[in-house]
Amino acid sequence: MSKEVKPETVSLCPLNMAAAPEQTPLCIFGTGDLGFSLGRRLLQSGYRVVYGSRRPHSCGPLPPGTQVMSHGAAAQSANLVFICIHRENYGFLETLLPELRGKVLVDVSNNLKKNQYPEANAEYLQRLVPGAHVVKGFNTLSAWALQNGPSDANRQVYLCGNSAEAKQTVAETATKLGFTVLDRGSLSAARELEDFPLQLFPEWRMPLRLAVGLTAFFFFYLLIRDVIYAYVEQQKDISFRIMVSLANKVFPIVSLIMLSLCYLPGVIAALLQLYRGTKYKRFPDWLDRWMLCRKQLGLVALAFASLHVLYTLLIPIRYYVRYKVAASTISQIKENRTSEFDTAIAWRTDSYYSVGILGFGLYLLLGITSLPSVSNALSWREFSFIQSKLGYVTLLFCTLHTYLYGWNKFLRPSTYKWYTPPGYMLSLIVPTVVLVVKLLLLLPCVDRTLTRIRQGWERTDPEDGCEKSLLA
Amino acid sequence: MSKEVKPETVSLCPLNMAAAPEQTPLCIFGTGDLGFSLGRRLLQSGYRVVYGSRRPHSCGPLPPGTQVMSHGAAAQSANLVFICIHRENYGFLETLLPELRGKVLVDVSNNLKKNQYPEANAEYLQRLVPGAHVVKGFNTLSAWALQNGPSDANRQVYLCGNSAEAKQTVAETATKLGFTVLDRGSLSAARELEDFPLQLFPEWRMPLRLAVGLTAFFFFYLLIRDVIYAYVEQQKDISFRIMVSLANKVFPIVSLIMLSLCYLPGVIAALLQLYRGTKYKRFPDWLDRWMLCRKQLGLVALAFASLHVLYTLLIPIRYYVRYKVAASTISQIKENRTSEFDTAIAWRTDSYYSVGILGFGLYLLLGITSLPSVSNALSWREFSFIQSKLGYVTLLFCTLHTYLYGWNKFLRPSTYKWYTPPGYMLSLIVPTVVLVVKLLLLLPCVDRTLTRIRQGWERTDPEDGCEKSLLA
Amino acid sequence: MSKEVKPETVSLCPLNMAAAPEQTPLCIFGTGDLGFSLGRRLLQSGYRVVYGSRRPHSCGPLPPGTQVMSHGAAAQSANLVFICIHRENYGFLETLLPELRGKVLVDVSNNLKKNQYPEANAEYLQRLVPGAHVVKGFNTLSAWALQNGPSDANRQVYLCGNSAEAKQTVAETATKLGFTVLDRGSLSAARELEDFPLQLFPEWRMPLRLAVGLTAFFFFYLLIRDVIYAYVEQQKDISFRIMVSLANKVFPIVSLIMLSLCYLPGVIAALLQLYRGTKYKRFPDWLDRWMLCRKQLGLVALAFASLHVLYTLLIPIRYYVRYKVAASTISQIKENRTSEFDTAIAWRTDSYYSVGILGFGLYLLLGITSLPSVSNALSWREFSFIQSKLGYVTLLFCTLHTYLYGWNKFLRPSTYKWYTPPGYMLSLIVPTVVLVVKLLLLLPCVDRTLTRIRQGWERTDPEDGCEKSLLA
Repeated sequence: MSKEVKPETVSLCPLNMAAAPEQTPLCIFGTGDLGFSLGRRLLQSGYRVVYGSRRPHSCGPLPPGTQVMSHGAAAQSANLVFICIHRENYGFLETLLPELRGKVLVDVSNNLKKNQYPEANAEYLQRLVPGAHVVKGFNTLSAWALQNGPSDANRQVYLCGNSAEAKQTVAETATKLGFTVLDRGSLSAARELEDFPLQLFPEWRMPLRLAVGLTAFFFFYLLIRDVIYAYVEQQKDISFRIMVSLANKVFPIVSLIMLSLCYLPGVIAALLQLYRGTKYKRFPDWLDRWMLCRKQLGLVALAFASLHVLYTLLIPIRYYVRYKVAASTISQIKENRTSEFDTAIAWRTDSYYSVGILGFGLYLLLGITSLPSVSNALSWREFSFIQSKLGYVTLLFCTLHTYLYGWNKFLRPSTYKWYTPPGYMLSLIVPTVVLVVKLLLLLPCVDRTLTRIRQGWERTDPEDGCEKSLLA
Repeated sequence: MSKEVKPETVSLCPLNMAAAPEQTPLCIFGTGDLGFSLGRRLLQSGYRVVYGSRRPHSCGPLPPGTQVMSHGAAAQSANLVFICIHRENYGFLETLLPELRGKVLVDVSNNLKKNQYPEANAEYLQRLVPGAHVVKGFNTLSAWALQNGPSDANRQVYLCGNSAEAKQTVAETATKLGFTVLDRGSLSAARELEDFPLQLFPEWRMPLRLAVGLTAFFFFYLLIRDVIYAYVEQQKDISFRIMVSLANKVFPIVSLIMLSLCYLPGVIAALLQLYRGTKYKRFPDWLDRWMLCRKQLGLVALAFASLHVLYTLLIPIRYYVRYKVAASTISQIKENRTSEFDTAIAWRTDSYYSVGILGFGLYLLLGITSLPSVSNALSWREFSFIQSKLGYVTLLFCTLHTYLYGWNKFLRPSTYKWYTPPGYMLSLIVPTVVLVVKLLLLLPCVDRTLTRIRQGWERTDPEDGCEKSLLA
Repeated sequence: MSKEVKPETVSLCPLNMAAAPEQTPLCIFGTGDLGFSLGRRLLQSGYRVVYGSRRPHSCGPLPPGTQVMSHGAAAQSANLVFICIHRENYGFLETLLPELRGKVLVDVSNNLKKNQYPEANAEYLQRLVPGAHVVKGFNTLSAWALQNGPSDANRQVYLCGNSAEAKQTVAETATKLGFTVLDRGSLSAARELEDFPLQLFPEWRMPLRLAVGLTAFFFFYLLIRDVIYAYVEQQKDISFRIMVSLANKVFPIVSLIMLSLCYLPGVIAALLQLYRGTKYKRFPDWLDRWMLCRKQLGLVALAFASLHVLYTLLIPIRYYVRYKVAASTISQIKENRTSEFDTAIAWRTDSYYSVGILGFGLYLLLGITSLPSVSNALSWREFSFIQSKLGYVTLLFCTLHTYLYGWNKFLRPSTYKWYTPPGYMLSLIVPTVVLVVKLLLLLPCVDRTLTRIRQGWERTDPEDGCEKSLLA
């Protein structure tokens, strides 16, 4: 840094020319919501902005500090043009071929549904204006995100295009706006990028379908066992139980099964690794996909568990329960019976409730730590401690809760109406299997082998295993 | 950067001179908490830091690796000076005019209340040191945020100043510290920036006031109808009911009204767009402001709904309820009555509870998805699916819950004490209107027109609508 | 990239040479999970990537678009080498001394436990390859975070190393990947960085230990007072109460104590500042550490409070409670007693419940606002309003709830079984002290002095206090 700086000028660091007052402006075609927000954001980040409009004198509100010109004039003044127009209106760009020649065109458009057009919007644009360098990008951002600046998960901008230089130019602008850029390759990836904003919870689809399927199955299973059985065999209409009692049987059953399905793939993966003696063979596809939706499985299970808690706490308010309690008291008096207090029942039911509450508490903890902002604040070791160790403890508590609920009912023949086991028994199968296998995996000898495999050791190839033992 | 790099030196990328050991230091005036934290952060990002202090030899703890000098010497050694001093102590800067000439001064100060001084601190500073380039900035960050690095919403730094070059210099430093810079224009925006940290939930004010108003109104309304009516007409003192029973009537009423007020502006906006036949006319201001606080309205409504749930689940523990239940059982026995179990009542009350629980579950889901880290992880389509579609379903469930609660009470004359309708009836007006209008808007013919309008189509000006149909 | 740019080419900003097709590649040694993820991320950010492998032709899956070579060839082609190998396998690097001379080596390794080796991995690496510039870094990121890009708290990358230029080179790469860089000094800090990912909730340790200690103490205290007392003095076995009744006494007691311990250090700090008459003297270490874990104390307290709520709402479902209620009704009938309804009891118990619910609601609000994404969205003033003002109100409500629970029991001698006070009395000591002292601190005269001290005023040194009154 030379000392003979003129006293008035500031020059701590070499100034980026883009910020000087005579900088080349950026151009935006289209004055809709997105064009407006994008322009404002560019202005705030220190860019000059010029709008291209077919009616420059009557085109609605624009951010103060920007200029509006005809499309041709605007394009000529800039090197980079954001095309914030619907694909249906791209046609007129063909009349601007000379002005757009050599410019970078950023296609930010989205469609209303997938596969609406035979080719991606950006590819269509490139075909219309072959002399320009089309870059697809920014389309995953909403006008809202552009106006308010990037935040957390909305920070990433995907780009693709055939010209590396054009992509670099757009990437630098995006970085200045505070976004992180991910290059997705050539313009042929444009369709994929245009499909992004149309996705509706792709990773939630499988868990939700499973939840709906299990709920439907257990609803009808219990409907037959409880309501229809009572109607057929005892001529009693207890259909009113559907609304609360039946729901409060279905929800915990589905919750427990889904929680155990959350931990089953991990156990299967461990068994596979033990069997293969290496961690370097890929898991089968179904297992990979299963492991990727464990978080969603767990959260759906938590939602069902929360409903179970609310339904359970509601029990004593219900008309039916109050009626039954009063009726039992009245009959005790009339028949002059005195029911003896049974300490064993008190112990068992209180344990059953207590284990359930503690299990639900841990469940909630798992849910809270999978909130993005919480899990991001955890180190990898902390995250896996909670989601794995605490997760298995949660599963253990919830399974124990169900076993205590059943207790010795399985011994009574009256439990098996129409030769079917009650719902809670069915719900215990998967969690029991998961817990038993997990217990076996925790045996010192098995655990040691597994740990070595996960650190890169291979059973089949011990003398040449050095290179393989890279960081896990 | 020369090409004849010696083999030992690293030169993958051209090295930023600012990181070289002989770099020009940054200067901080003031050794308080903020000065301390700022200095440490600058050091960690690779800057050299020099403190200016009136008592360089006894000025308290400073980050290791920094130097302390007199104000004059410190200012002379740097081009950029952070003024971390209270405005009241700016006076002495007038003695440093020669040293500060041509330097960039960053005013990070805040005041204790709004409009404490006639001019903004930064403008005052510029007046004191006319030869320097004052930039207002960093004042929205706490010492805490500076020390721990930027995170999520605290990532944005606002700057304003009259010299574009000075702003650029400060912006580059801020970017190096990991912040995203937003330029707010000339130094006249300084007051606005200084008011930022003094704001106390500006966007929550209206919803909270509304909640307090509605709570007060319904509290007194129900106090008169329930407690005072019973006292006047039946000479019974049931004032103890205020604490739980009355609260548990007020909370759900306010919650339902506020939830519906969350969706009313959307419905009004749709009607307006249909009536005007265009989306390009601005909404009236009150509607804009209303739409901006929908999230807050919904969260306050959720808080009241949660209280309602807790109060409801508490019912069977209450002394009053236990007394009443026992009394009813005793009177049944004494009068040798047997109340018949009524399946219709069981159906209705259980449905009422079940719909309420499911509505509350959806309510919670809406609340969770409006956590910043969760809503940021959603695509625009996913967010609007949850907040709009699921939102209306929630409103439907909660309204149904209230209708089931009322059932046929509206037919009985005894319901209208002193000719006033019960509170829950009043709470049903707005949600019913919102749901009915929404249903009308979903009619295929209306929905189609609305969708076209929202995609840019205009009824009044069909032949010239091309340019207007820009991206929404 | 030719210098005579043709008019068609894009040159809005001077292009970064690193993005040109002939750019120098980055090299990664090791093809494990971390090497794979790192390579993919580098590719996506526009870098060329070359892998070094001992078996270049059979080294498992690598990101498409990368090359694999022998270690020597790969090292020679790049200036920057990421060492993604376990420390145990560093040995072979000694054979590459000529190829690695002058290169920047990034040590990303972690160990399985603390102090596993006498020297840090990075220092060991530097000793093995003295001619290279070793930089420790990226080791706090998981393969997962690298693959999915930075997010929120995982955005920070720590670096240390002896060469400022080497660090700068790595820092620029990290910035391009979207991370924020924090320089932790020379290579001697490597051990500290290697210990980071091994930490398991260090800031939660004290609060959790305290919670366990308090829970154990009160459990045994109440076990003796309730269960053992009844067994010894009345020969009644009420041990079944352990599961729910006892738990529901321990949880609220621990919760209230921990909540008050959350606010005690703030009160102590204020007293210290008042006593010393300055805010510039450091607090004792124990107070500093205590204040740093207030958030954790509060969240553990909230967890216990939530358990208390669930256990309380469960009460009427319990077998024991149902039995007791029925028995009391039956005995009333048999003895032909009619218990009179006591409005005073109704008032008191309902107030007790209502205050408890409102306190818990505020408690939840405090918990929600300490979620990282929520607290980051708050200004400093808003955060301190909630955590301080609302926090004291919460403490007030919860303390009041406990006082209302006790009511006049303290007057009855039967309360003091075996001359010990009941648990809830013990739990009231700390909160009462905190609230009383806080009330004293809010007295206008005290508050004024404290505010002045916190703004930098000093009692002992009034004439020289100007410099000290820097921004707080």
